[in-house]
Amino acid sequence: MFQQRINNLRQKFLKEKLDAVLISSVSNITYLTGFTNFSEKEREAYIFIGKKFAYIITDARYTEAVKKEVLHLTLFERGGKKSTEDLLKKHKSQVKKLGIEEDNLTVAEHKIIRKHFKNTKHFDVNHLRSIKTEEEISKIEKACKIGDLAFEYILKKIKAGLTEKEIAGELEDFIRSKGAAISFPPIVAFGENSAVPHHQTGPSTLFVRSGQKGQIVLFDFGVKYENYCSDMTRTVFFGKPGKKQKDIYETVLKAQQEAIEYINGVLKSGKAVKAAKADKAARDYITSKGYKSIPHSLGHGIGLDVHEHPSLSPKSKEILKEGMVFSIEPGIYLPEAGGVRIEDLFVLEKKGLRQLTHSPNKLIAV
Amino acid sequence: MFQQRINNLRQKFLKEKLDAVLISSVSNITYLTGFTNFSEKEREAYIFIGKKFAYIITDARYTEAVKKEVLHLTLFERGGKKSTEDLLKKHKSQVKKLGIEEDNLTVAEHKIIRKHFKNTKHFDVNHLRSIKTEEEISKIEKACKIGDLAFEYILKKIKAGLTEKEIAGELEDFIRSKGAAISFPPIVAFGENSAVPHHQTGPSTLFVRSGQKGQIVLFDFGVKYENYCSDMTRTVFFGKPGKKQKDIYETVLKAQQEAIEYINGVLKSGKAVKAAKADKAARDYITSKGYKSIPHSLGHGIGLDVHEHPSLSPKSKEILKEGMVFSIEPGIYLPEAGGVRIEDLFVLEKKGLRQLTHSPNKLIAV
Repeated sequence: MFQQRINNLRQKFLKEKLDAVLISSVSNITYLTGFTNFSEKEREAYIFIGKKFAYIITDARYTEAVKKEVLHLTLFERGGKKSTEDLLKKHKSQVKKLGIEEDNLTVAEHKIIRKHFKNTKHFDVNHLRSIKTEEEISKIEKACKIGDLAFEYILKKIKAGLTEKEIAGELEDFIRSKGAAISFPPIVAFGENSAVPHHQTGPSTLFVRSGQKGQIVLFDFGVKYENYCSDMTRTVFFGKPGKKQKDIYETVLKAQQEAIEYINGVLKSGKAVKAAKADKAARDYITSKGYKSIPHSLGHGIGLDVHEHPSLSPKSKEILKEGMVFSIEPGIYLPEAGGVRIEDLFVLEKKGLRQLTHSPNKLIAV
Repeated sequence: MFQQRINNLRQKFLKEKLDAVLISSVSNITYLTGFTNFSEKEREAYIFIGKKFAYIITDARYTEAVKKEVLHLTLFERGGKKSTEDLLKKHKSQVKKLGIEEDNLTVAEHKIIRKHFKNTKHFDVNHLRSIKTEEEISKIEKACKIGDLAFEYILKKIKAGLTEKEIAGELEDFIRSKGAAISFPPIVAFGENSAVPHHQTGPSTLFVRSGQKGQIVLFDFGVKYENYCSDMTRTVFFGKPGKKQKDIYETVLKAQQEAIEYINGVLKSGKAVKAAKADKAARDYITSKGYKSIPHSLGHGIGLDVHEHPSLSPKSKEILKEGMVFSIEPGIYLPEAGGVRIEDLFVLEKKGLRQLTHSPNKLIAV
């Protein structure tokens, strides 16, 4: 499988008239090798592929593990007397034009590379990843399934006196108990905090406010299962929701439905499904109801990364294709009343969208 | 405090003849604002500081939170009709030379910036962070204290039948129960796995091997407390260690002691303490005993990031100064026998190193 991915990559860069590519992003390295142990924060490895060579470059901390797990690439151990530059120099004469990940490689790294390769050009691996294989989809589906179970579990746990942090901790524990990991730190937002789309889960406490409207509880969390991520958001009410809250909820839910119907409709007509148009369908519905437009994208691709291609946003130039997996997650955020977001994952199939998250989406008051 | 840090930064870039700096790394943004919610994986914010302006640039997902928490910077909300470029352009005429973080900014971002600022130069924020204030040290100390408690706790939990992953999970749970977070995914390595310095904690199971030598259990984990990290490694034996294992253990422990004594000795003599020389002291001791040299650096600074300045490595050009906090972590790794690493954190004070981690370091057999 990984050899096949290297072959596809080679085909792509040759088509783009590149002689070799240097891959630096950790999730692309994982995609091409299955190896998941490199840190996102520090540069611990590269993959360097030419017409007739294919290296993984790393240091002595990783060589033992790489020797065992990455059999389809030649290991180059950097450190001590051998540097990455030595390897690059060795292949200098064969490489007139080098592909690099301009959206990942740093200016400092590029300075070093340019000493040996004057001619570099952006090379995009991410698009290779956007159309998923059946195996990848089934891993994402499994992650979604665990997410659904986690939501079911956490709904039973909600009670007055708990903090956002405690609920997030319970979610994490549950996910771990299923042999999976979180795909990002869970967001749990109470009341007004839910109006901050990326609220930092904190010490706010859930309490019963007598005579007041229900307190919003927003959950945005994801599961990582065999390296593949899920992502979902549900907004529930602690206490009985007020009229305005209900209206926001129904509007967001309907906006999601608008996007789904738009995508399925265009697909049926046989035309290309533009991601920006799907975004617009949901966005326009929300503004038509008198609310402010969604302050973020409608959705994002998902796979080895929580956020990857395609992007469903106003500026997106992407076409949604069969095999792509992405979120649809409209939201309305009112600074005083709070925010509502509903997020599900879908895979685009021949006949239309198939939903991968199955948690109930009708208004829940606990 | 954060305003003071901005002032120090301004002083530094003016001294380097820069008119403004664009800060992109998340931990530097946290250092300058206290705001911790931006993702490391995607570019969600910049800080743009000139002689007479100081902006934080982010999008609508974060503006509500930033308005509340970052009062000393002017908020520029990008997205919709306003882009980061618009703000940069506005200040073009005032900025002849712009400082950027070349080790963080991507080639793609630099391309855009260069359209407006032909003259850019690397600007280093990390060195501002390497000397810690008392408040920062006390946060790291608190993180170390929780780490020590976690080690004490986990020692009691070790028993045959447990997997590496389960033990790592127990460590995480304990750390979370103390109101803290992990500073990185804990490494737990059994037996031969301990010979891989960055082993990926997995399904290996601890078992009693009759008639054989003790099985190595290596723990490398850290705590994050109020954004500040700790990091520690202990290697214990499940069963009675063999003679070779004992010798490795004692050699690593002595190597750590050699580095400590070297640093304290040079400090006493009033000379500059070179980080590379401290690394050499431990390294030479290990090779003098017939073992292979340490396949990683002897140590690293720690603070908002688990790894930051200064680096204690053969190539390091840094001088260890009062107020710096760093690890000293020699190791010996034998592919068949397993590996031993011992890691503690220290702060350099006027009179010498003060150890911040206090877990016992004498050989433990459980």
